[in-house]
Amino acid sequence: MSTTIPTSQSPASRAETLPASPDGGVTAAPLEQLPSAATPPSPGVTPVETGERIDVAALGKILDGRWWQLRRAARDLALDPDLQKIESLTMEEHRERVLVQSRRLAAMGLVHRAYPPEVGGKGDPGGNLAGFEELAVLDPSLQIKAGVQWGLFGSAVLHLGNEEHHRRWLPGILDLSVPGCFAMTEIGHGSDVASIATTATYDESTAEFVIHTPITAARKEYIGNAALHGVAAVVFAQLVTKGVNHGVHAFYVPIREERADGEMHFVDGVEGSDDGLKGGLRGVDNGQLWFDHLRVPRTNLLNRYGDVAPDGTYSSPISSPGRRFFTMLGTLVQGRVSLSGAAVSVSKMALAIAVAYGTQRRQFTGADEHSEVVLMDYQQHQRRLLPLLARTYAATFAQNELLDRFDEVFSGRHDSDEHRQDLETLAAAAKPMTTWLALDALQEAREACGGAGYMAENRLVGLRQDMDVYVTFEGDNNVLLQLVGKRLLTDYGREMAKVDIAGAVRYVAARAADMTLHRTPLRRAAQSVLDTGSRARSAGHLRAAETQRELLEDRVESMIAEIATALRPARHASPVEAAALFNAHQHELIEAARSHAELLQWEAFTAALPTVRDPRTREVLTTLRDLYGLTLIEKNLAWYLMNGRISGQRAKTVTSYVDRLLMRLRPHVNDLVAAFGYSPGHLRATIATDVEAERQREAREYFRHQRAVGREPINEKELHASQQRSGLAEPGA
Amino acid sequence: MSTTIPTSQSPASRAETLPASPDGGVTAAPLEQLPSAATPPSPGVTPVETGERIDVAALGKILDGRWWQLRRAARDLALDPDLQKIESLTMEEHRERVLVQSRRLAAMGLVHRAYPPEVGGKGDPGGNLAGFEELAVLDPSLQIKAGVQWGLFGSAVLHLGNEEHHRRWLPGILDLSVPGCFAMTEIGHGSDVASIATTATYDESTAEFVIHTPITAARKEYIGNAALHGVAAVVFAQLVTKGVNHGVHAFYVPIREERADGEMHFVDGVEGSDDGLKGGLRGVDNGQLWFDHLRVPRTNLLNRYGDVAPDGTYSSPISSPGRRFFTMLGTLVQGRVSLSGAAVSVSKMALAIAVAYGTQRRQFTGADEHSEVVLMDYQQHQRRLLPLLARTYAATFAQNELLDRFDEVFSGRHDSDEHRQDLETLAAAAKPMTTWLALDALQEAREACGGAGYMAENRLVGLRQDMDVYVTFEGDNNVLLQLVGKRLLTDYGREMAKVDIAGAVRYVAARAADMTLHRTPLRRAAQSVLDTGSRARSAGHLRAAETQRELLEDRVESMIAEIATALRPARHASPVEAAALFNAHQHELIEAARSHAELLQWEAFTAALPTVRDPRTREVLTTLRDLYGLTLIEKNLAWYLMNGRISGQRAKTVTSYVDRLLMRLRPHVNDLVAAFGYSPGHLRATIATDVEAERQREAREYFRHQRAVGREPINEKELHASQQRSGLAEPGA
Repeated sequence: MSTTIPTSQSPASRAETLPASPDGGVTAAPLEQLPSAATPPSPGVTPVETGERIDVAALGKILDGRWWQLRRAARDLALDPDLQKIESLTMEEHRERVLVQSRRLAAMGLVHRAYPPEVGGKGDPGGNLAGFEELAVLDPSLQIKAGVQWGLFGSAVLHLGNEEHHRRWLPGILDLSVPGCFAMTEIGHGSDVASIATTATYDESTAEFVIHTPITAARKEYIGNAALHGVAAVVFAQLVTKGVNHGVHAFYVPIREERADGEMHFVDGVEGSDDGLKGGLRGVDNGQLWFDHLRVPRTNLLNRYGDVAPDGTYSSPISSPGRRFFTMLGTLVQGRVSLSGAAVSVSKMALAIAVAYGTQRRQFTGADEHSEVVLMDYQQHQRRLLPLLARTYAATFAQNELLDRFDEVFSGRHDSDEHRQDLETLAAAAKPMTTWLALDALQEAREACGGAGYMAENRLVGLRQDMDVYVTFEGDNNVLLQLVGKRLLTDYGREMAKVDIAGAVRYVAARAADMTLHRTPLRRAAQSVLDTGSRARSAGHLRAAETQRELLEDRVESMIAEIATALRPARHASPVEAAALFNAHQHELIEAARSHAELLQWEAFTAALPTVRDPRTREVLTTLRDLYGLTLIEKNLAWYLMNGRISGQRAKTVTSYVDRLLMRLRPHVNDLVAAFGYSPGHLRATIATDVEAERQREAREYFRHQRAVGREPINEKELHASQQRSGLAEPGA
Repeated sequence: MSTTIPTSQSPASRAETLPASPDGGVTAAPLEQLPSAATPPSPGVTPVETGERIDVAALGKILDGRWWQLRRAARDLALDPDLQKIESLTMEEHRERVLVQSRRLAAMGLVHRAYPPEVGGKGDPGGNLAGFEELAVLDPSLQIKAGVQWGLFGSAVLHLGNEEHHRRWLPGILDLSVPGCFAMTEIGHGSDVASIATTATYDESTAEFVIHTPITAARKEYIGNAALHGVAAVVFAQLVTKGVNHGVHAFYVPIREERADGEMHFVDGVEGSDDGLKGGLRGVDNGQLWFDHLRVPRTNLLNRYGDVAPDGTYSSPISSPGRRFFTMLGTLVQGRVSLSGAAVSVSKMALAIAVAYGTQRRQFTGADEHSEVVLMDYQQHQRRLLPLLARTYAATFAQNELLDRFDEVFSGRHDSDEHRQDLETLAAAAKPMTTWLALDALQEAREACGGAGYMAENRLVGLRQDMDVYVTFEGDNNVLLQLVGKRLLTDYGREMAKVDIAGAVRYVAARAADMTLHRTPLRRAAQSVLDTGSRARSAGHLRAAETQRELLEDRVESMIAEIATALRPARHASPVEAAALFNAHQHELIEAARSHAELLQWEAFTAALPTVRDPRTREVLTTLRDLYGLTLIEKNLAWYLMNGRISGQRAKTVTSYVDRLLMRLRPHVNDLVAAFGYSPGHLRATIATDVEAERQREAREYFRHQRAVGREPINEKELHASQQRSGLAEPGA
């Protein structure tokens, strides 16, 4: 079988000249004429050539929202080498560096805007968070370190303490002379804060609270600043006085003091340990704290929502222990809001890096065997990245709205129980969406950049490691979505309560008929008529904003109505049966909440469109919004089909329409990430510079020169082909 | 508004005694009777109580496959502290440790089984990989370091070299006295190996090859052992002789030598750099290598598939350059097979850790307000973990089959071009499924363990960081799936070619009618008759293995037929149009390949069921297989609906049936992960021991004692309630 090829003259076998696919596959008849794995560009007209570029500057300002100046100023801190993350530091070095960086932030006064002017702030809660969200661009560890100090520890004193507390403790908190802990979470209880087991028992004889950790499960866990730097802590504990447990309250507790050796040590009655290495955020010194009958003065109770008189009498402006608890926790909603915003910022970075690389990098030849295809021209690459880009835009607009709401409540402009509850629900819906988006975007970007994506110098892996825990802390994402789902059920219940009984019965009966007897709902019948037309017309219909809205809203409403109906028997069931019934619908409820959160993002995206003045920019952005809407519908297409909301005929157009949107957006992808406002200096990823383009230029130049001077060797395959053309026979075996 | 509560006597407001949900949500009428977020267990009968436990030992042996003894022996190496990963090491320390560990593996002879007896091996390729796959349990860095040395560098010499090469180089490779590099990938070309730009130009005057890196893009990149330890390398380069480029060939190249200073230095003509920090695998010293007219003897060409005579004449047993290239690469398929197996092992670890924690950890009270619910009893927790468990079982059985095929080919028992091509396609289908499974399992496990999942001591984050790049190297997962898709198209083309023309026309016409005119296919009509029965009957039908198989097969076949039909015009189109047409179906083709790979896993799972002797175990395993099949169908439900394969009525039963399967599997979840055979000693995750159960025991004991001695404070809420019951009025505002 050995075929000796006397180089430069022997012809090749005809049967063996079929193009082989470059990725290791061998195609065969009758499909051998297919182009190889390497696939071709979308039609090659770039917006630059047609002069139809979008208005990046104006769009950037809209994206950066109301506090765009503060946001950009914070982002630009990332240009300062002293404020950047260094990937190669040890945990110890990283912790020290982040502490030093935090001191710089304190000195700049940049992190104090939310505090009242009396203590050196600006009374600007929204602007503060806008800037704070961007600290993740510098280093997520720095953001969390700052968040622990000024967002949690300091905010607890601000929102739960009285004026005397502010006067005594806020100055040291703001200037970071007193680094502090927010000691809420315990080993035994994470999301279920109401069940923590640390106790603060009032002792009338000394007018002190005795802070105590009775069991291992009650140790404070994952507490930032606990391992090393914390000097004081706000400790959450069950307040017990006169034999009654009044629920969770917060106490200001000194935990470390300088001793004779000049070092900081735990004060007597406090112990702790170091959590050591984590999946990321290695610049934050998390640890455990626990207490052995530690005594603090009565006045260290942060007493805005509950106080104890010297004689031990408890009082509160809120008589319901449950409502009091949620009111206290609600004052700390900014943690959730700002993590959500940080996740959006990091999602933008991930896509900016992946798009920069994907629009430079070429791999596999396409129609032209001498020219390799740009990654971003592959349909699969577009499928991987562009829907994430649409999600990131949607998340950005939704975050801007959330921040406006936050500012309205915390500036006092619209501060009522109802506004606070709405804000909390919005934050609970936003944070799961944005933090999971960040992980999805970072991972897809990482994979889309191949081996280069795995190098620490390209940032994606480090950012993903840091952002990983954002889906867990400040409220586990699944727990938050369940909370949103329960709120939706409550609201639905309120709505139903308004309808007269007969109306409700009719409503339920109509739904039942729809669901079980396959009766054609009106909407579907109308659609079937439309669907006799062309697919293009159906697709056009799906592009209408009102159609998207109707479909997205309908899903949320119908799911909630269905769950509410299914849960009705729980009202008269035993606790065990009721709990089992609820559990049987838990997954569905969480999915309904997710759809609700996605609808909120879709609505925010849609609401932002009219603010874009340039028609071309608005058109492209509308296409991106459509991509967001259509991919949501595509994701839940089975539901729309099963429930008669979309005909089988129209459903088939969804995916092909998404493909069309991808092609339309392809030429604008660089501009769409440029509008995020992250320069290579912010991104600090080697592949987000022009190194890849430069390497390609060098390669092209080299091969051009080789050909020009006649030094390029002839390819064996081409040799075979030319020998065949010249009629030479195949050499003997 | 301030309500002072004189503790221990004042009653509470009636309106404020509604149960508040523990996660921050406040439910309201008419749903206030709902149980809180804390939701209840599935019916509480455990298999232990009923004596219906599955046969863990027998199942474990089936899971561990044909080479179960070798697999377990390798796994047990993880019990040796010297072979474990230490998370806190610096990169430098970790690299050194892994080198030392590699030497121990070499000394044990454990990594040589695949080599022929002449050089100290056992000629046992399958058994070798079974053990090798488990090295990831010790430390994925160690697995990759060993894989570079014995799986890539050594295998290249073994499979591409001649007997003289084996005699000269294999001893030093096997005993690790010559650590080596597999220098294939270049900066400019990752998955597209055929396009690498390093040249090996033959110089007749000296009978040497000149290895040269003409451009930056041609530098070897991400090469294991390149940064520090590599003494030699197998370098892949375009072989040029007599002015003809014969394509990619492999050369044995010494790269480092000991100099007078006693240190290892690059030899003249070789340069390199250190890739530094990566997302994980920090124990592997990846780097770049490049060459400046480095000369190696003619006989350093690994010449099994292509040789150059002293006079420069090229010869090859394979005349087609394309087929020659793929044959050479095909000999290295074991890298792909073993990474796939390692990913399965790590998926098992992830689930073993998450299930251990999820069946101990309790959070939020359910039906009984004094007893918290075990995480694994929440429906959502089951939804998050059990389908991954089913995927892991399916992947295990498919991997066992793949390993059998690998062994058949490489032992020479069934070694033909066709067998090799089938093996390569199977490996290309398996590796994306298993490596993405590992990332999904590790991430969901991480999140399901909350903050504890983020601690390095619980292993999940470190393993995820290491496994991240498994989806990229040894063939990017998307590129591999596209390769599988093209193979499916080719096979479909062959099938179609066999059918007579009239038959093919009828086939296409029938499909067209089905697709565009909504004619009811036979299968659907039959189903509609069945569907008039109860939902339970429909669900029962879906549980039938034949129904699942039919649905899963039908999807793959129909998608491929549809793509093939759509691509027909490409045969007569211009290259540009043909490339564009192929690109327009790239995503669909990759999805078809994914469905094909999932079908292979489903089939392997199904084929394994009869090997389980114990009826109860087989029943539980069948339920798990059903969960795998049903979740695949659920994932693609829209496709089945749009294409008339499942009626809307039946589709609605899929999700509720999945929920039923989850409940049925819940009692067996500990046994199902126990069968994986990873003890706490293998897992080395604190939360996979009984610390959580111990903490809970301590807490229960504490509270029980407090109640017994009357020291438990009364809850303010209970106080309000009891005061209400005793008829006391609400205190004044």
